[in-house]
Amino acid sequence: MVDFEQWEGFEGRIWKEEVNVRDFIQKNYQPYDGDEAFLADATEATDKLWGALQKLQKQERAKDGVLDMETEIVSSLTAYGPGYIDENLKDLEQIVGLQTDKPLKRAFMPYGGIKMAEQACTTYGYQPSEKLHEIFTKYCRTHNQAVFEAYTPEMKKARHTHIVTGLPDTYGRGRIVGDYRRVALYGIDFLIEQKELDKSNVGDGVMTDDVIRLREEVARQINALKGMKEMAKIYGYDISKPAKNAKEACQWLYFGYLAAIKTQNGAAMSVGRISTFLDIYIQRDLDAGILTETEAQELIDHLTMKFRMVKFARIPSYNQLFSGDPVWATLEVAGIGMDGRSMVTKNDFRFLHTLENMGPAPEPNLTVLYSSALPETFKKYASKISIATSSVQYENDDVMKPVWGDDYSICCCVSATQTGKEMQFFGARANLGKCLLYALNGGVDEKFFEQVGPAYAPVTSEYLDYDDVMKKFVPMLDWLAGLYVNILNLIQYMHDKYYYEEAEMALIDTDVRRTFATGIAGFSHVIDSLSAIKYAKVKALRDEHGLITDFEIEGDFPKYGNDDDRADDIGIWLLKTFLEMVKRRHTYRNSEATTSILTITSNLVYGKFTGAMPDGRKAWTPFAPGANPSYGAEQNGLLASLNSVAKLPYHWALDGISNTQTINPDALGHEPQERIGNLVQVMDGYFDQGAHHLNVNVFGTEKLIDAMEHPEKEEYANFTIRVSGYAVKFIDLTREQQLDVIARTCHKVM
Amino acid sequence: MVDFEQWEGFEGRIWKEEVNVRDFIQKNYQPYDGDEAFLADATEATDKLWGALQKLQKQERAKDGVLDMETEIVSSLTAYGPGYIDENLKDLEQIVGLQTDKPLKRAFMPYGGIKMAEQACTTYGYQPSEKLHEIFTKYCRTHNQAVFEAYTPEMKKARHTHIVTGLPDTYGRGRIVGDYRRVALYGIDFLIEQKELDKSNVGDGVMTDDVIRLREEVARQINALKGMKEMAKIYGYDISKPAKNAKEACQWLYFGYLAAIKTQNGAAMSVGRISTFLDIYIQRDLDAGILTETEAQELIDHLTMKFRMVKFARIPSYNQLFSGDPVWATLEVAGIGMDGRSMVTKNDFRFLHTLENMGPAPEPNLTVLYSSALPETFKKYASKISIATSSVQYENDDVMKPVWGDDYSICCCVSATQTGKEMQFFGARANLGKCLLYALNGGVDEKFFEQVGPAYAPVTSEYLDYDDVMKKFVPMLDWLAGLYVNILNLIQYMHDKYYYEEAEMALIDTDVRRTFATGIAGFSHVIDSLSAIKYAKVKALRDEHGLITDFEIEGDFPKYGNDDDRADDIGIWLLKTFLEMVKRRHTYRNSEATTSILTITSNLVYGKFTGAMPDGRKAWTPFAPGANPSYGAEQNGLLASLNSVAKLPYHWALDGISNTQTINPDALGHEPQERIGNLVQVMDGYFDQGAHHLNVNVFGTEKLIDAMEHPEKEEYANFTIRVSGYAVKFIDLTREQQLDVIARTCHKVM
Repeated sequence: MVDFEQWEGFEGRIWKEEVNVRDFIQKNYQPYDGDEAFLADATEATDKLWGALQKLQKQERAKDGVLDMETEIVSSLTAYGPGYIDENLKDLEQIVGLQTDKPLKRAFMPYGGIKMAEQACTTYGYQPSEKLHEIFTKYCRTHNQAVFEAYTPEMKKARHTHIVTGLPDTYGRGRIVGDYRRVALYGIDFLIEQKELDKSNVGDGVMTDDVIRLREEVARQINALKGMKEMAKIYGYDISKPAKNAKEACQWLYFGYLAAIKTQNGAAMSVGRISTFLDIYIQRDLDAGILTETEAQELIDHLTMKFRMVKFARIPSYNQLFSGDPVWATLEVAGIGMDGRSMVTKNDFRFLHTLENMGPAPEPNLTVLYSSALPETFKKYASKISIATSSVQYENDDVMKPVWGDDYSICCCVSATQTGKEMQFFGARANLGKCLLYALNGGVDEKFFEQVGPAYAPVTSEYLDYDDVMKKFVPMLDWLAGLYVNILNLIQYMHDKYYYEEAEMALIDTDVRRTFATGIAGFSHVIDSLSAIKYAKVKALRDEHGLITDFEIEGDFPKYGNDDDRADDIGIWLLKTFLEMVKRRHTYRNSEATTSILTITSNLVYGKFTGAMPDGRKAWTPFAPGANPSYGAEQNGLLASLNSVAKLPYHWALDGISNTQTINPDALGHEPQERIGNLVQVMDGYFDQGAHHLNVNVFGTEKLIDAMEHPEKEEYANFTIRVSGYAVKFIDLTREQQLDVIARTCHKVM
Repeated sequence: MVDFEQWEGFEGRIWKEEVNVRDFIQKNYQPYDGDEAFLADATEATDKLWGALQKLQKQERAKDGVLDMETEIVSSLTAYGPGYIDENLKDLEQIVGLQTDKPLKRAFMPYGGIKMAEQACTTYGYQPSEKLHEIFTKYCRTHNQAVFEAYTPEMKKARHTHIVTGLPDTYGRGRIVGDYRRVALYGIDFLIEQKELDKSNVGDGVMTDDVIRLREEVARQINALKGMKEMAKIYGYDISKPAKNAKEACQWLYFGYLAAIKTQNGAAMSVGRISTFLDIYIQRDLDAGILTETEAQELIDHLTMKFRMVKFARIPSYNQLFSGDPVWATLEVAGIGMDGRSMVTKNDFRFLHTLENMGPAPEPNLTVLYSSALPETFKKYASKISIATSSVQYENDDVMKPVWGDDYSICCCVSATQTGKEMQFFGARANLGKCLLYALNGGVDEKFFEQVGPAYAPVTSEYLDYDDVMKKFVPMLDWLAGLYVNILNLIQYMHDKYYYEEAEMALIDTDVRRTFATGIAGFSHVIDSLSAIKYAKVKALRDEHGLITDFEIEGDFPKYGNDDDRADDIGIWLLKTFLEMVKRRHTYRNSEATTSILTITSNLVYGKFTGAMPDGRKAWTPFAPGANPSYGAEQNGLLASLNSVAKLPYHWALDGISNTQTINPDALGHEPQERIGNLVQVMDGYFDQGAHHLNVNVFGTEKLIDAMEHPEKEEYANFTIRVSGYAVKFIDLTREQQLDVIARTCHKVM
């Protein structure tokens, strides 16, 4: 057992015997069931810094969304000297550290793919470095190059037609949450020692490929830990030993996260479950009288400000998929421990309170791990913040805890991983809507008029017959599942080879659990289409080549989103069938296959590449996002819609089921307290049924329209909305994306 | 079937249906059983160019063995503009192409390890590039870095004590012979087409690690083929189509080889079995009257000159292992076809004749694939050249053909591989002499006084008991075999990952056979030691720590090298036992394990790190090389010595059994014809017994001593001797190495 003087006052033994942050938390956190009255306002320092940052964000928006870009330096742990939000205010910063040398300046990250890195520069008018071009084309192979060289022609075609898309084959795969708390709790030196020990236990001496790969990976992790110490030194900190107080704990933890975002540019670079952990340090300092609540809030505000600043250089096609420049710096609060104690601490209030102290913001992607058993005071405060800011999402701790325990983090928008014990092989999603059309048309793409899927027999009848369609849809789905899994296998292999996440993996157990996260898109449209074929009469309209390109629907049919089992059961079947098709296949490093129903904002891009469907959806129009019912399909109010989604068993979609709902404030009541109470009730009911996730937006469509027409209005500068699994500033969306959001159902009745 | 106008006059079909050079040769070559009377002298151009090259070689020797080094440019297919032996004579060069821009200038090759590349520069007074240092330490990982990060502490120790050594962990692994003939026969475009086809057949769509790795490799091979075209263009040639005449065939083939040596720096970079192949082109041109014999010889002389110029930048520790700057540009002549026809062509005479036209030379490493069934005229001519130049080695085609067919190449000193169908994972050798001492001392190293092997029980008796020693030796041997195989697994994995031989593998079948070539050292000393323990009385002398450091032998005992089964049987047991210990282990990419008894010149280094042995060998003195009997052990003349070695079954040492013998000219007779006849008889007898290999040196010890004392004498400038598996210029050896050679048995009687 080790013991550090920095641990004075902390209880427990197991976490001193081994790296075990969860045990430290369980032995030391103080549940809080009081209300928000204790919270402190923003300090003058916070106001000044946030003011400076807002000015920069305004400049950023004025420059097409990118304030500054690096072109000459490859991002690394130690590539830059110290950087601050504002040189003149740097003494005010409680938590220091930037991705580059200047705030909001985007780093140059070529390992995922030099083309993408360069295209990002040229897109925004920057000239990428010739020297780096030479290095990353002549000497260093990159992930992107290797993946494309290894792709099969079929894979390239499927990527081109967007039946599979959002693949992380030009940048980092992301979705790996380092346990950044470890830096604070143990200090780097102890973590290095433990990794050295781990390395000596990798393999029994027989050097199989797996053992060799892992030995090299652990060696690289140790290098990264050493690099983190150097990085911290640049800012004047020695993080070799544990943090000795709350400020150091926040700072050490942030350095861990900073190491991740300096070395990787995954779509999702989540922060993890840090709130309860940090509360322990803050509470110790409060108890010792060396910290005030105002100072505590300032630490959390400043830490949060750093999470609000994370930026990566992206290309236009990326921004189409993930609109609004998100980074999924997802950060959790609340949840219930395995022992039944609420894990809500004062710090969970403090993190939500940042949305008041510094206004709404899309990042960090604040996530409440919800249970109806959470303290009422906290549920109400979260509802209040949701209603005021539409910046919070909710996920069902009751369904996640049995699978992932009580120390999981959300590693992207909604997907859970065990903190420090798990990593995800992530790779976007398969377009099931298009797959249904391939089944009808014998594998011929309806947009590109190419044979993309296998040339199975097409549907030849005038009216679609349910049994006939199903006989054709199932094998086509199986083809798609196979192709998709194998594309991901290839991407993950190359990512490990060319763009390994040594800094993040250094903060994760060596004996890591690996999940293989697939995803599906077009969910509601396939359900409704199959329902239409089954319960109504659907006539296929063919073009001059005999390709089915449109449909005429005669009669009515049940739709997903109305609590009607006839439709909802099709959804359950679809999810289970696809998951089984994925699970039975070989997955890279024997990872555990999971799937998700979440589309981020890629529902737009998917729709744009997908023809008309038998549910009446017009060709090239947006899909419904995530697991949401189709636009206009919900006819029976919010609760019926939620009931439909809640029927999807979470254990068949362990990667998450994303549901985004917009509620007109008036639907929740007229008084603030009434609205808060009603929203809590809606969520208690929804989650008690076993639903997984809810994005809560509280505003009316008219506000969206006004914001779209008058983005210059001060009130809309930080107007944040929840989209599929994350939040964006509404005015950062393109007009097309704004129109899509406006088209979504806004519930005026419960 | 494809057909090219360049193939006019060639017979056969199968080689037109698929890449199959062997079939082309068999269908088109003309055996030659005449004598050497047809051969032509060197042309004026050859004399001038060779004169210029000799001048450069003299300058090179004056500059400590390195004429010039690159420090700023990373070697690649297209890194340089054209280079010539002498700018003023460039029109005389029939075959063009240099590794760098200047003759004998050594290229900078960092992928195997930037440290080695830089150390090579600084060793010879060159300042390596800071820019490249940055690139290969900051951005690009190298083979060497990755291997050392992944090594276990035990592996590092074993490497340090030299119980395992000569590992290619700081440079290329070599021993891969591209089928350079393919470039001439098919042209690059056809080869690209075939590789594209292969790529489409890699895997059935299920992306396992193996499939992904191979898909990427084939993609890289295709890139390399494209690069070869660019490289040839730099010299004004378009090699996209097949060669249309003998000159182009030589040139195209050389470009293939040049691609290999521009991109890899393996210890052995062999040329392969090209002689019979090229004869077909030469014969066609001779028959068509568009080429004269003098012109034909000039082509072969100039091609050979290029092979004599191959150089790599090496470090001192490398030169200790492989003295005399060898590159193993091994090139075969003769052999017998599967159909029983001699494969000797006029071209085989021409290649041997280069040793007359341009004098003796260590490279290319000329190898006669011997059989007593070869035409007498050829055997005699080869003998004549051996006696005159000591620059030729002989390998038994009768034992190799059943295993490797009739189109194998020698890929290093003596190891056969099927040309274009096989690659070797090579990795030097295990020191069995030291292993025996570990068995006696319970795994404690006798030089470093460290526990390196497992702490098995040591021998504790005063007199060594044979059964007791064997009980301890076998498990220690098994430990060593396991460690050694796993070190090699690790090295080969990293080599594929960081320093893949795309240019060589592009000229090898995609569905390649992979052998895993291990090797052993100290062979004769272990045999004689075990024999001494068994047949004489061996007293162990211990130092103050109880470690056995010397021995007293009482009585006589049989020694390996005297045709005495009592000793020779121990050798057979040792070989078989070690091979089985290697074969039962996991080997990288399921390669087929083989072993060899060859030590190159590393017998010196091995000896230097190995204590006294029970056979009477003094501590820190050289081992006998390869499979040779120990110095002084042979008491019964050349034939008895050869008989002992011939007993070792080749199929237990498929990687080769190297035997180097020096015969005093007088032992062969007094007249030139008598000597030639006797040497042929010796070889017929030796190889008919199933022996594998013989290095033939014909000179007396007094010549060696004179050359050591008077290296400045003109007659010694090109004085070449065969050492273990290759040839060196005697004056290029260090004095220590020269003394070792002088100490070897020089047979004065048959």
